[in-house]
Amino acid sequence: MAVPAAARPAAWLRDNCPCTRCRDPRSGQKLFQITDLPADLAIAAATEADDGRLEVLWSDGHRSTYPPGRLVADDGGDRRTEAGKRLWRAADFTSGSPEADWSAYLRDPAEQAAVLRAVQRLGFAVLRGVPVEERQVLAVAESFGHVRRTNYGELFDVRVEPNPNNLAFTAAAIAPHTDNPYRDPVPTVQLLHCLANDAEGGDSALVDGFQAAALLRAEAPDDFAVLTRTLVPFVFRDRHTELRAERPLITTDPLGRIREVRLNNRSIGRLDLPDTELEQFYAAYRRFAEITLRPELQLAFRLAPGDCLVFDNTRLLHARTAFESGGTSHSPEGAGGGRRHLQGCYADLDALNSTLAVLDRRTAALDELAALFEGAGAGEYLGEAVTQAEHMLQAAALAQRDGAPDALVAAALLHDVGHFFDRHSTAAVSGHQLMAGRDNRHSETGADWLARWFPPSVTEPVRLHVAAKRYLCTVEPAYRARLSEASEFTLQVQGGPLTEEQAAAFAELPGAADAVAVRRWDDEAKDPGADVPRFDDYRPLLARLMAER
Amino acid sequence: MAVPAAARPAAWLRDNCPCTRCRDPRSGQKLFQITDLPADLAIAAATEADDGRLEVLWSDGHRSTYPPGRLVADDGGDRRTEAGKRLWRAADFTSGSPEADWSAYLRDPAEQAAVLRAVQRLGFAVLRGVPVEERQVLAVAESFGHVRRTNYGELFDVRVEPNPNNLAFTAAAIAPHTDNPYRDPVPTVQLLHCLANDAEGGDSALVDGFQAAALLRAEAPDDFAVLTRTLVPFVFRDRHTELRAERPLITTDPLGRIREVRLNNRSIGRLDLPDTELEQFYAAYRRFAEITLRPELQLAFRLAPGDCLVFDNTRLLHARTAFESGGTSHSPEGAGGGRRHLQGCYADLDALNSTLAVLDRRTAALDELAALFEGAGAGEYLGEAVTQAEHMLQAAALAQRDGAPDALVAAALLHDVGHFFDRHSTAAVSGHQLMAGRDNRHSETGADWLARWFPPSVTEPVRLHVAAKRYLCTVEPAYRARLSEASEFTLQVQGGPLTEEQAAAFAELPGAADAVAVRRWDDEAKDPGADVPRFDDYRPLLARLMAER
Repeated sequence: MAVPAAARPAAWLRDNCPCTRCRDPRSGQKLFQITDLPADLAIAAATEADDGRLEVLWSDGHRSTYPPGRLVADDGGDRRTEAGKRLWRAADFTSGSPEADWSAYLRDPAEQAAVLRAVQRLGFAVLRGVPVEERQVLAVAESFGHVRRTNYGELFDVRVEPNPNNLAFTAAAIAPHTDNPYRDPVPTVQLLHCLANDAEGGDSALVDGFQAAALLRAEAPDDFAVLTRTLVPFVFRDRHTELRAERPLITTDPLGRIREVRLNNRSIGRLDLPDTELEQFYAAYRRFAEITLRPELQLAFRLAPGDCLVFDNTRLLHARTAFESGGTSHSPEGAGGGRRHLQGCYADLDALNSTLAVLDRRTAALDELAALFEGAGAGEYLGEAVTQAEHMLQAAALAQRDGAPDALVAAALLHDVGHFFDRHSTAAVSGHQLMAGRDNRHSETGADWLARWFPPSVTEPVRLHVAAKRYLCTVEPAYRARLSEASEFTLQVQGGPLTEEQAAAFAELPGAADAVAVRRWDDEAKDPGADVPRFDDYRPLLARLMAER
Repeated sequence: MAVPAAARPAAWLRDNCPCTRCRDPRSGQKLFQITDLPADLAIAAATEADDGRLEVLWSDGHRSTYPPGRLVADDGGDRRTEAGKRLWRAADFTSGSPEADWSAYLRDPAEQAAVLRAVQRLGFAVLRGVPVEERQVLAVAESFGHVRRTNYGELFDVRVEPNPNNLAFTAAAIAPHTDNPYRDPVPTVQLLHCLANDAEGGDSALVDGFQAAALLRAEAPDDFAVLTRTLVPFVFRDRHTELRAERPLITTDPLGRIREVRLNNRSIGRLDLPDTELEQFYAAYRRFAEITLRPELQLAFRLAPGDCLVFDNTRLLHARTAFESGGTSHSPEGAGGGRRHLQGCYADLDALNSTLAVLDRRTAALDELAALFEGAGAGEYLGEAVTQAEHMLQAAALAQRDGAPDALVAAALLHDVGHFFDRHSTAAVSGHQLMAGRDNRHSETGADWLARWFPPSVTEPVRLHVAAKRYLCTVEPAYRARLSEASEFTLQVQGGPLTEEQAAAFAELPGAADAVAVRRWDDEAKDPGADVPRFDDYRPLLARLMAER
């Protein structure tokens, strides 16, 4: 059979039937059990339609229609194993570590995506300029996921405590380690926000634990194998807690790929193994620990107040040098002298990866818009002296000039995107077609497309901007008199001025005033000589609005 | 060498050195890195002390002392694999499912431990009589752990929603499945609290996924192997979420033991495998799904308002039958008619297991106390007509008679436990020894022992109850006159009445009034005919107080 999809195994093909009886169109979830299918399911007939779609009639009478081409497999997230990572050594960051300014991260989704991608691919990133205030670390965690509460609370203070239940809360040096190995599931992301660090010592270091494990595999494959198969008890006890987990130091997935590293000398318990295996384990454990201490793997740095380190706790090892604790030291402010104080919390990679995927989805939509501005937007605009893209960019600039809120700037920028689409395909239509009256509903088309990505504060002024013109012609005779020839022509196609009754009803609509504002920028945005920002300059604003949907 | 510990591998033995240079006495955490030890570490000399302790001199000069007998390995928590579970079929619960009343669970830590142990061992338990109020499910989760927030929020409402992003929020039947397979780490505990269930249908079922996996392994080992090695993409997308995880349907640990089951037809994505492997996977997946549908595995029940089901989401599959959704139905109360409404949230097994371990630790301490009441407590009490145990049980009963708060009932019950201990060993001492003046500090001994388990509200009245006698002798001449002969004798051993100055200082102590109250019950508790509760009757009260420490 010539059709690629039909050549795939029947159960697989049927399991991925996209019809609305098989998949809920709202959630995309499957509506049937694998056991609902006949055990002897087979393809009774398969035909390729003219448009390349594959029509399958099944032996149980069900009919499936598949989109043209091969069915694309789901990327199931090997971003959690070494296959989805870039392993590194300290020298890879001589020109700087992945970092961003907190205000830029908040303002620009592209900046946020870059930070989250660094955590996903490299295992860490540093946010600078996070306000030096308690509990801010929680705001950083909530910016991409959910705080994972532990026995240490919603957050924990890393500073010298009078009665520490953990060495982290002393001034002692701490070797490269992962946190909470006695938790299962282990928290997969850790955040450390520096509030004060004028102690002598207390520098930080990170080690790529996947790199260390990969080196162990290359240099001593038998030791690597020992560490992937030996279950190690990790234990933590205090008054209210008795946590135990039994996990290997290196976890691989069923394909043998490194997936998790757990290394923490402080909480390794007493292993229960025959002597030979104990000896093998201790030799391998030692070799692995030695690799993590190699200077070329240790990325050393110093956290300054306002820095927030975000890292993958299933991969990166973190360490600190010993420090002189406050009170004894060079600074005169008593309790503030020689103080080191971090606030930390935990979160999880799944939400981080989800946030990044959604940001990427939005970026793809913006890319699509940008391409429309470049492509169809370069076409003539209803016989005016500007292109469609120039017209829309000017409208946005005028909205900004008038101090309009972001949503209205976006509505002005995007008000005519409906012109870019034919009603029945995504092919662009020309101004000539518009003039011929083929797209008198472009405001609806545009608003509907935008509604997949933008909130009503953007889409509704777009939807109403043609009605706003008809409204203004009714209530402001001078407005109509100013219309360009082309606009007067399309007014007729669009239904002419509203009746008095219709105008009164329009004025009552929730988005009416916003639509009228967009309309006025629309009418003004026809200056062939205007110097305006480019589409890309609006990306942060558009991406922020997308997050409000 | 005759000493068992010294025969173990050197690295293991040294890694478990209990000295305070090797282990922080506060946190129990190790203070050295494995790499801090010499690579050629060896035992230079090992000697067994008279008391059985092993003294080791190491080649690097360090000295270790190990307790008598073999070093006990840490139980690292194979409670997460099938090795720590009791696999079940529906028929195992014909005489009832593991359940408890919510108020009993809150009142009696033994009841709480039974519920948590059921979740640990069987995978589930039902709490009855949880108040039918929104957000109560969070209180249940917080009673043993921490709520795991997800894209569905801190909690989620399982009821028919107008625009569901998940089939759970419709009236459709849902086959046995685990939740959130697209999350990694997956939430390991799920809670479902029933607020209303007068719909037609909407019954619940649970299946032991470990049992189903074990049956698959027994009946079709090749299929079992396929499901443990095939990475399956699980996907969930909505407006703000794009979660992906790539995990096997059955996860085994490095010893091949079943550790996690992930089965959810709704969110299995499109696998990317060669055709032969796809065919093998689909055959194995189908067989596994068929096993989960076997009637003998399905424990069917109906949640009633106030029921809260707590279950292991890495093991148990949950299901529901379709139901008639409200509004259309037989009940006249409009929105309330035929309504099914559960509130759910997620939590994690590690905290649940920790809470249970701490409860068990306290139970062990209570067992130790109970044994003391049985053993040493059966001894004579300073020549009085009651045993030591009878005396303390009477004191507690008198405190209860007087409406004393729990902490004072406990202090009265335990005020003389110091008598049970020699100052230098745990061997009990006799009343004769006390009379001979060997234990004039039994209040301190007792309070110190109790402070490992009880809060100051219990220990401080115990600590001060001898001083309270000396105080009363000073400020109430009639009190002294009423002392028994034995008590008058021990008064002298204890230092005689306080001076006026000492008495004034005593009265200022925070626990003075409580200690005086305990003292009066102490003095009164010498009635040979009194009928009093047994030690075990005080266990819930004592266990609750332990939780306050």
